[in-house]
Amino acid sequence: MNYPNGKKSSSQSKLTSNKKKTSFSNRGMTLEDDINDTNDYYRITNQAVIHKKPTPVQIVKVDYPKRSAAVIKEGYFKQASTTDYNGIYRSHYIDFEAKETKSKTSFPLSNIHDHQIDHMKTIVEHGGICFLLIRFAVYDQTFFLPAVKLFNYWNRQFNGGKKSIPYQEIKEAGTEIPIGFPARIDYLKIIDQLYF
Amino acid sequence: MNYPNGKKSSSQSKLTSNKKKTSFSNRGMTLEDDINDTNDYYRITNQAVIHKKPTPVQIVKVDYPKRSAAVIKEGYFKQASTTDYNGIYRSHYIDFEAKETKSKTSFPLSNIHDHQIDHMKTIVEHGGICFLLIRFAVYDQTFFLPAVKLFNYWNRQFNGGKKSIPYQEIKEAGTEIPIGFPARIDYLKIIDQLYF
Repeated sequence: MNYPNGKKSSSQSKLTSNKKKTSFSNRGMTLEDDINDTNDYYRITNQAVIHKKPTPVQIVKVDYPKRSAAVIKEGYFKQASTTDYNGIYRSHYIDFEAKETKSKTSFPLSNIHDHQIDHMKTIVEHGGICFLLIRFAVYDQTFFLPAVKLFNYWNRQFNGGKKSIPYQEIKEAGTEIPIGFPARIDYLKIIDQLYF
Repeated sequence: MNYPNGKKSSSQSKLTSNKKKTSFSNRGMTLEDDINDTNDYYRITNQAVIHKKPTPVQIVKVDYPKRSAAVIKEGYFKQASTTDYNGIYRSHYIDFEAKETKSKTSFPLSNIHDHQIDHMKTIVEHGGICFLLIRFAVYDQTFFLPAVKLFNYWNRQFNGGKKSIPYQEIKEAGTEIPIGFPARIDYLKIIDQLYF
């Protein structure tokens, strides 16, 4: 989340230690920036219509000044009850969450909430294409992990297993999405490979 | 929109003149309340997963008090670039907007924005099920109008036609959704009739 006041939520803060020299390097862009750009590109080229949902805000106090727009004077961030992105591609319902971690070794499952998992499960049941995009910021690597695989890791933690998914497992179970151009994170290509 | 401070946006203010005596009368509920209840019911009964998107807010100033949650101190309502509701039903992508009017004679097209129409057109192109729910509050009547029919009325206004859709035309072109229970606005039933 990139707040207009310049503050960033910690999970998406830019990395200064990233020294990779690929031609399409990230140049400090967050995963969210990359996905938003990619979704814009998909819409412009009429490939898919996928949007990020607005940040849910609990509005407590609003001022209505004369002759100008209503001003929210008190509000709080609410926890999302669904995933952040959804839309349509090749007539299919698409639904996903995107998370960035600074860890070098694993993706902490605490980044995902119970009700997001519940939501993703019902989406899969209803025939939607549902997945998680995970970025390991230190490696500048982004992985596509189908929701059904995520559920296995999620459930494992309640059976005495790890509370995170090791990097190595994500590398094996997921599909890496190279940083590209013009679609920076061309996840539709992975959907084509995995679901069609 | 029902702000927590008790203020309501004008389009959704409750009607006090509604004296209809049907057993499932609206009892002052807004169309948005009815749809949210209906969507909850659809989710609980595992029929569909359809959510209202959060109200888009431009956040300008956030305070981070010690030991308590971040407080939004300045924010503004943004115009939505898409429709308010989307989700999945019978493996299909569902996308719709809902509007209430106090008019007795017609639905003003100014209730819908250009970019919402553009969005709805691309959804239809991509194979989604897209529609508008219109409530005539004075009659306590809610109509399901497929997006393709809405486009005709929308285009007509630029060819010297009306800037609104007469009530009578909506009655003929749309499908009335009776107020029911437990699904107050059982629009999936109309989708079943029209699209499957």
